[in-house]
Amino acid sequence: MGRITARWPVTKVTLGREPSRRPDTLAVEEPLEIRIAGQSYTITMRTPGNDVELAAGFLVSEGIITRAEHLAGAIHCGGPGSGGDENTYNVLDLTLGVGVPTPSPARRRNFVTTSACGVCGATSIDSVESTSSFVVADDPITVDVDVLTSLPDRLRSGQRVFDSTGGLHAAALFDGSSGELLVLREDVGRHNAVDKVIGWAANRDRLPLRGTVLQVSGRASFELVQKAVMAGIPVLAAVSAPSSLAAELADRSGLTLIGFLRGESMNVYTRPDRVMVTAALIEGQVTGGR
Amino acid sequence: MGRITARWPVTKVTLGREPSRRPDTLAVEEPLEIRIAGQSYTITMRTPGNDVELAAGFLVSEGIITRAEHLAGAIHCGGPGSGGDENTYNVLDLTLGVGVPTPSPARRRNFVTTSACGVCGATSIDSVESTSSFVVADDPITVDVDVLTSLPDRLRSGQRVFDSTGGLHAAALFDGSSGELLVLREDVGRHNAVDKVIGWAANRDRLPLRGTVLQVSGRASFELVQKAVMAGIPVLAAVSAPSSLAAELADRSGLTLIGFLRGESMNVYTRPDRVMVTAALIEGQVTGGR
Repeated sequence: MGRITARWPVTKVTLGREPSRRPDTLAVEEPLEIRIAGQSYTITMRTPGNDVELAAGFLVSEGIITRAEHLAGAIHCGGPGSGGDENTYNVLDLTLGVGVPTPSPARRRNFVTTSACGVCGATSIDSVESTSSFVVADDPITVDVDVLTSLPDRLRSGQRVFDSTGGLHAAALFDGSSGELLVLREDVGRHNAVDKVIGWAANRDRLPLRGTVLQVSGRASFELVQKAVMAGIPVLAAVSAPSSLAAELADRSGLTLIGFLRGESMNVYTRPDRVMVTAALIEGQVTGGR
Repeated sequence: MGRITARWPVTKVTLGREPSRRPDTLAVEEPLEIRIAGQSYTITMRTPGNDVELAAGFLVSEGIITRAEHLAGAIHCGGPGSGGDENTYNVLDLTLGVGVPTPSPARRRNFVTTSACGVCGATSIDSVESTSSFVVADDPITVDVDVLTSLPDRLRSGQRVFDSTGGLHAAALFDGSSGELLVLREDVGRHNAVDKVIGWAANRDRLPLRGTVLQVSGRASFELVQKAVMAGIPVLAAVSAPSSLAAELADRSGLTLIGFLRGESMNVYTRPDRVMVTAALIEGQVTGGR
């Protein structure tokens, strides 16, 4: 489809200089309507590309699927008779596998369980706990500090589209032991980038993602922790700050939540036992290092 | 309510040093359920505070209200008999004014109009154009470059909560002529910060916001341009990149969209005629500047 970036004429204005006109490159944002068996389920504003992964990851995040066979088919619909002359690639119709219940569209809006007047952080967390098929609390993975500190640069260097637009978030999945990059995805929406990563894994039947680290650009919200838990990812690392509810859900789920991962340091908000600080490094510091 | 920040124990890990334990301050994220006449309409993850503004701005963005009298009442519901012992302040029940039609919850999900198989950027833009009560294209405001270049620092200096958490977005409304700050709001969600700003104005019957500039932290998405158009704001300035659909909607609506507003320069994507570069500055540059 090749619609990841778009050209746009821009007027560059700088104090004390004559304005100049030049073309700029923008990250493409387009709506994607996800349908299930022909019924509209949700619309997300996303960067086109990897739409089937996005949809699969979204279904995992919603607790609808956990295995590749649960998503039997996905087609971009459109063409003659659909109100336009061409397939806009902005509507994806999913076919669920045999035995997978079709969720009602109303479910989407009510994912955060609402009691009489009691919607609050705790009920949101309860909702994730009751929906998730996987447990991350017992994942025995430990990750070396030097692997963790390498992740933001490796995420950044893999962001091809960011380089030209400055406008895309990214998410990447790494093997926690070897530090190997498994997959990296970009999107105007950080939640979409994470869904694409999780969908990549779901379509390869690699859930739960035990022993992995999910690295994201920017901040860590409740929603991102929720997605990690639903995919069985034990470690989530963000370049910037987590929110309070992100930390609370991570704590309750037994996920290791890392924030402000920059340069050689990081803040570990939950389950710091998974972060390995090697004795040699510390001894070096104590005896002669700086 | 004072629930804007929360304390959380954090393990600070730095390469080659002994990990240390200290308290950290997080930006609070909690769900807010917005009800209309007792019926659940939407749930947004937001930072508590200014909830009535948030709800009012959201209704403006949805095309449901445009004047203060259109929102007759708003109460945080809860208390005995509601499933909990206390008001969690996470459910806000709105009463619309006389003659304002109650929207159906289904409308929310379908705000981006879906045709048979034709949901795409163009239909999203059509939807905003058909819904908006205000026109920004004819707003004659011009804004001096030196006013514009001052806005990011003034936004940043007004961000009290960001200073302690690093985890909040901000939106601020300025008078385009004088550069006067009218209102600034922070939130974990940029769209919520913008809704709070617009709701502040709606509750004071100041819509349409002709002659104003909306400055936001981070990027400019389609959604933010949509909110600006729905409130009649003629100029939207972002610190980072806009998306393609943001530029397209701004272009179609006649809104001035500015991105990468940093230091002494900016990119103007649409309607650059509203950005005033004074002749004196340019002459200074030509005759004696560097």
